[in-house]
Amino acid sequence: MSRFWSKVVHGLTPYTPGEQVRMPGLIKLNTNENPYGPSPKAIAAMQAAADDDLRRYSDPANLAVKDAVAHRLGVQREQVFVGNSSDEVLAHTFQALLKHELPLLLPDISYSFYATYCSLYGITAVPVPLNDRFEIDVEHYTAPCGAVIIANPNAPTGIALPLERIEALLANHRDQVVVVDEAYVDFGGASASALVDRYDNLLVIQTLSKSHSLAGLRVGFAVGHPDLIAGLERVKNSFNCYPLGQVAQAGAVASLDDVEYAAQTSRAVIATRERLTAEMLALGFEVLPSSANFIFVRHPGHDAVTIATGLRERAILVRHFKQPRIDQFLRISIGTDAECAALVDALKKLLA
Amino acid sequence: MSRFWSKVVHGLTPYTPGEQVRMPGLIKLNTNENPYGPSPKAIAAMQAAADDDLRRYSDPANLAVKDAVAHRLGVQREQVFVGNSSDEVLAHTFQALLKHELPLLLPDISYSFYATYCSLYGITAVPVPLNDRFEIDVEHYTAPCGAVIIANPNAPTGIALPLERIEALLANHRDQVVVVDEAYVDFGGASASALVDRYDNLLVIQTLSKSHSLAGLRVGFAVGHPDLIAGLERVKNSFNCYPLGQVAQAGAVASLDDVEYAAQTSRAVIATRERLTAEMLALGFEVLPSSANFIFVRHPGHDAVTIATGLRERAILVRHFKQPRIDQFLRISIGTDAECAALVDALKKLLA
Repeated sequence: MSRFWSKVVHGLTPYTPGEQVRMPGLIKLNTNENPYGPSPKAIAAMQAAADDDLRRYSDPANLAVKDAVAHRLGVQREQVFVGNSSDEVLAHTFQALLKHELPLLLPDISYSFYATYCSLYGITAVPVPLNDRFEIDVEHYTAPCGAVIIANPNAPTGIALPLERIEALLANHRDQVVVVDEAYVDFGGASASALVDRYDNLLVIQTLSKSHSLAGLRVGFAVGHPDLIAGLERVKNSFNCYPLGQVAQAGAVASLDDVEYAAQTSRAVIATRERLTAEMLALGFEVLPSSANFIFVRHPGHDAVTIATGLRERAILVRHFKQPRIDQFLRISIGTDAECAALVDALKKLLA
Repeated sequence: MSRFWSKVVHGLTPYTPGEQVRMPGLIKLNTNENPYGPSPKAIAAMQAAADDDLRRYSDPANLAVKDAVAHRLGVQREQVFVGNSSDEVLAHTFQALLKHELPLLLPDISYSFYATYCSLYGITAVPVPLNDRFEIDVEHYTAPCGAVIIANPNAPTGIALPLERIEALLANHRDQVVVVDEAYVDFGGASASALVDRYDNLLVIQTLSKSHSLAGLRVGFAVGHPDLIAGLERVKNSFNCYPLGQVAQAGAVASLDDVEYAAQTSRAVIATRERLTAEMLALGFEVLPSSANFIFVRHPGHDAVTIATGLRERAILVRHFKQPRIDQFLRISIGTDAECAALVDALKKLLA
């Protein structure tokens, strides 16, 4: 605490990211990173972009990235917003589009950063409980509200909603912005970006961190009606006109253009997820049906924290959330087949 | 305007950055970019960092960058904050440290983004006029206030305050944060970072965009008392935990460590500035005494917009600010000697 802090700072409980431990031999299944590296074309583009031209400001409008997103998702440039990671895109979205007189509806269990953004911008949030199967039930989003945000697939459950459920949510909230955060959509979900031309209240947010293996580059984007994008641009240009440097822009464009590479690594992750799920079930775990690059599991006979601690002693990191309803679950990122085999081996010993 | 926008969005007048025109043969003296490229060591470090490891999140704490800044400025790691450009650092600073019951004092003529931040965060600003010589007079900062921000050297005037004037401002505001924005300090100013151990109310902000020739990388930082830094970290970790990617961190560290390279290019810029100043005076311009990588000039016999338009027709861009008191001035970035010679030639024809 300091007498120099603004009032808002005193009330903040910042988000705690998963640990970024660097240690030889560590199996890091705690932050949903892709086990495969980024597209070689993206790496080549970034290396080429690291040149004397860095003395210049990068394009503040991010047009090349917008065009690459637009091309990939079949939308127009005016329907695309780009930011320094989807976290930044989310932050601007909370400030520009989710702060209203009426509260924001969001799942009681979801990306925990949402609550942090609400504190930062003074937004009242009303959590809507997941159902007993830990699914988002759009029929429960009926309270008077100023806006809605969900993650699809949801985190940390990994469960995806079918597009017709998203559409029902949109149709029921014609006068409220509905944000669908699709960080994990490329691992088995259906993107609501297909609906942006029909619903002017829809904003879809995606990231290159997961399916494009570029967590360390920091590029995210949103697609939606040009009016929603214009609101985001106003806030962005009142915050930092140049959120993406030249190298990030070059890497993002090359990665978005290399459609087949991302599709191929996503297929590999999905295949490993299915194998790991079967093995976890065989070990007696309950595994929520995942459409993401992680699984969310609990064991009826073993405490989650005890398991996580035991794994950590074997240099395997997974993520535990100390939170009501899910404190007996562990979120396990999908690694390589070898990493997942090592995890299963360690679990066999721990549970024996 | 859109019914989906939050209230704050309607009232925003976003900052307008200088144009980023790309055109062969263009002489671009409008955005204060360095005419020389970044350190070859920084380029090599960035190319090496563009690798498979990008699938991982970058260090959210930016420790390597903090240590490089700390080493360079002779402070401790706990006294350093790092952000995605000094604009992002400024944004977090406005929200975390400059929003109080009492208004913020700032120069009437300064970096125009300050007013934009005030709109974004609902901060009341009271402009304090520069004196008749366009200098910041710290004796005029006497109104009751919650905080103070100045740029030193100031922009777009280029005029620097000596350190003892900064110290007087700090001593007169023991209970208010005083932010000194030193984007241009390496071109002839004296950094107030030397005072952070003595004044717990001081925050100094710098950037790698200008003297490190890395405008296209987006790295800025602040130094100050650990309590001020802790306030900034709270906001940062409620906004975007990973503001700097892996390539940006690697490039920043290598550039900060290559002290001699930045010093050498800054000396070259200063030498060109002095030559250009002499030539502008010979052409009849008034030139404010600059400690920055630009000069701020006006001609008693020629209209500023007419000159800027004429230069533009000759593929030379300079910056004009449509703003009271300075609308007859032009801000001209220091280019290479050849670029400045071409500017002088063009001006000779225009003024003839």
